[in-house]
Amino acid sequence: MRYELYYWSGIQGRGEFVRLALEDAGADYVDVARERGDEAMEPFLLGDRAGLRPFAPPFLKAGRTVLAQTALILAWLGPRLGLVPEGAAARLQAQQLQLTVSDLVAEAHDTHHPLAAGLYYEDQREAAARCAAQFRRQRLPKFLGYFEQVLAQGDGQHALAAHSYVDLSLFQVVGGLHYAFPRAMRRLRPKLPRLHALAARVADRPNVAAYLASPRRLAFNEQGIFRHYPELDG
Amino acid sequence: MRYELYYWSGIQGRGEFVRLALEDAGADYVDVARERGDEAMEPFLLGDRAGLRPFAPPFLKAGRTVLAQTALILAWLGPRLGLVPEGAAARLQAQQLQLTVSDLVAEAHDTHHPLAAGLYYEDQREAAARCAAQFRRQRLPKFLGYFEQVLAQGDGQHALAAHSYVDLSLFQVVGGLHYAFPRAMRRLRPKLPRLHALAARVADRPNVAAYLASPRRLAFNEQGIFRHYPELDG
Repeated sequence: MRYELYYWSGIQGRGEFVRLALEDAGADYVDVARERGDEAMEPFLLGDRAGLRPFAPPFLKAGRTVLAQTALILAWLGPRLGLVPEGAAARLQAQQLQLTVSDLVAEAHDTHHPLAAGLYYEDQREAAARCAAQFRRQRLPKFLGYFEQVLAQGDGQHALAAHSYVDLSLFQVVGGLHYAFPRAMRRLRPKLPRLHALAARVADRPNVAAYLASPRRLAFNEQGIFRHYPELDG
Repeated sequence: MRYELYYWSGIQGRGEFVRLALEDAGADYVDVARERGDEAMEPFLLGDRAGLRPFAPPFLKAGRTVLAQTALILAWLGPRLGLVPEGAAARLQAQQLQLTVSDLVAEAHDTHHPLAAGLYYEDQREAAARCAAQFRRQRLPKFLGYFEQVLAQGDGQHALAAHSYVDLSLFQVVGGLHYAFPRAMRRLRPKLPRLHALAARVADRPNVAAYLASPRRLAFNEQGIFRHYPELDG
C-alpha cells in the first residue's frame, strides 16, 4: 500500500504527527503537496472528489479511503503500521491519549493566534501575550503533568504497553514546545523526566533518526503551530 | 448495560453530545455528577482509579471500561446504541465528522474565552469581541457550510446513510449556535436549509422530544460552551 499524505508543504504542523508514524514504520508514502504543491489538495478540500470531503488538512489517501482528522488518521494507521498494541482496550486508550495531544496542540497554536487564525500575529500580539502567560502557567504544566503521570502508571517508558504512535506524537509535542517556549520548558523539565526520556528514545529510533537528519524533516518555523516568539515565553 | 456518564452537573457542555445519544437510544444510564455532585468525578480525574486517567470530563464508565474524549465516547457508543450505520467506512466517516464538530465546538467556546478558560469573561471582553467577530464572519459560515454540503451530498437528510450520533450532535450545535449568536444565525439560516431541517427532525424524534421536555435537559446558560452575550453577536 502506497499512502498519500496531504498537508501544507511549508510547515510541520498537524501533518507531522502522521508523517512521523509513516517514517517510523518505514511505510511507502508520498508527501503530495511537497511534491506537487499545495494546490494538489484543492480537489479534495473543494469537494470535487468522491467521498466525504475533509474539512481541513491533514488527510490521508489509501486506495479509495480518504480520511481526515489527525487523531483518526493515526487510529486507522496504527494497526496497519504496527504502531499500536493489540487489543480493543489499548486502541481506545491510544485514541484517547492522541485526542488529548490534539487538544494540547490546539491550545499551543492558540497562544500566538488567540483571536483568529485568519489574522496576523502582529494584529493580536497583546492578546497573545496574555494567552501565552496563562498557557505557560496553567495549561502547559497540566497537560504535560498528565502525560508524565500516564508514563509513570505504565511501564515508565511508553504511553501504552509498547511503542505506539502516541509515543511518536509525544516526542513531537515535547520538541515543539521546547522550540516555542524554551524558558518555560526548561523550568518544567525537572518535573517531566519520563516525558523527556521518551522524547530522547524516540529521536534515537533508527527510522526516526534518519528522518530527522533528512531534508524531509522541515525545521520548526514561525508559520507553523509551534512558533518561537520570545515575548510569549515569559 | 447501565452506563455511567460523568460530566459537570450545571451545564450542557460537551457532556450533552453523549447525553443526547444515550437519551435518543433509550439507554439505561446514570448522570453521575447530577445525582452525586461534581466531586464524584474526582477519583477518576485525580488518577485514583485503575486504568487510564481522563484528562477532563466528559467520561463514560461502562462496566470496567472508562473512556474520555467526547468524539471517542460517541464512536464507542455508536454501534452499541444503534447510532451509526454498519460498516467500517461509515464509522470512520462518523468519527471524522464528529471530530470536526468538536473543532467547531472548541472555536465556539473560545469566542467568549479567547485568552484562557481560567480567566473570567469580564477579564477578556475586548479580546472576545474581536474573536467573536472573526468567528461570525469566517469560521461559522465555513463550518456550517461544510456540514450543509455533507448533508447535500448524502441523502439530504442525514450526515451519513442513516440516522446517527452525528445527526444528534449537529442538532445540538445548531441549537447552541442559535442560542449564542441569534442574529448571526438568522442571517446564515437561508444558506443552511438542510441543517435546519435536520435539527427540526431530530427535535421531533420521540425520545429526544421527551428528553428536551424533561428536567434532565438543562437550559443553555452563561456557564456553558454556547453563551449568549449580545455584544458578541454583532
